[in-house]
Amino acid sequence: MYDHNNIFAKIIRGEAPCKKVYENNYALAFNDAFPKTKIHVLVVPKGYYKDLSDFLNNATAEEKVGYFDALEATLKILNLKNGYRIVSNTGEDGCQEVPHLHFHIVGGQKLGSIILSKNKAI
Amino acid sequence: MYDHNNIFAKIIRGEAPCKKVYENNYALAFNDAFPKTKIHVLVVPKGYYKDLSDFLNNATAEEKVGYFDALEATLKILNLKNGYRIVSNTGEDGCQEVPHLHFHIVGGQKLGSIILSKNKAI
Repeated sequence: MYDHNNIFAKIIRGEAPCKKVYENNYALAFNDAFPKTKIHVLVVPKGYYKDLSDFLNNATAEEKVGYFDALEATLKILNLKNGYRIVSNTGEDGCQEVPHLHFHIVGGQKLGSIILSKNKAI
Repeated sequence: MYDHNNIFAKIIRGEAPCKKVYENNYALAFNDAFPKTKIHVLVVPKGYYKDLSDFLNNATAEEKVGYFDALEATLKILNLKNGYRIVSNTGEDGCQEVPHLHFHIVGGQKLGSIILSKNKAI
C-alpha cells in the first residue's frame, strides 16, 4: 500500500517545497535536501509507486519511457563529465527511507569503489 | 567509443560464460562473477552501450522498455522480499569497472544505509 503522506508525494503535489532540477509529464528531479555528495539529485516518477518493483510491475510503457527521459534530461543538465552513480533502494534490506520510488544521482566528486557499505561515508 | 572486447560484450555474444538468471530480446541478467553480497546479479542491455548516459541518449523506446522488462522479470525471479538495492556506476567518478551499461542488483541481506563509500564493505 502506498502512503500518500510521504514527503515526495507532498513535493509532487506542490504541498512541500523542493529545489527543482527538471520536470516533465511523468517525473520530477530535485536536489536532495540532505546531500551526501557534492551533487545529489533525486528523480521521482509523478505516479504513486512505492518502490522500483511497484513501478516495474504497474507503470505503463509511457510512464517508464517518460521516467527514463527525465533521467536523461537531468543527467544532461547536471553534466557530470567525470561520471556519476545512480542508486535506488527498495525495502528494509535496501534501507529505503522514503516510500516513493526514487533514483539518487550522486557525483561531482570521486565516489567509493564499493557499491554498498555499512560504514559512514563518503 | 564503445570497446567491443569488454567482458560483458563477450558474454552477450556467447564468447564468455555466465550464470544466466534471465534473458529477453533486449537484455541479459546473470550472476556477478565476484559477488559482493549474498545476491548479486547484473542486468545488461544487449545493445552496445558503454554507460547509462549512452543508453539514455541513443537507445530506442523499445530497447528502454525491454531493459525495464528484464529488470522486472529478474527481480521477480530473485524474489527479494526484504528489499534490495540497484546501482549503476558511470565513468571515473562512479568507479565504473566494465565499459558496458550494467545495473547491479544486490540483496539477500541487510545492506548499509549509506549509498556510497570509500571503505571496504559490506
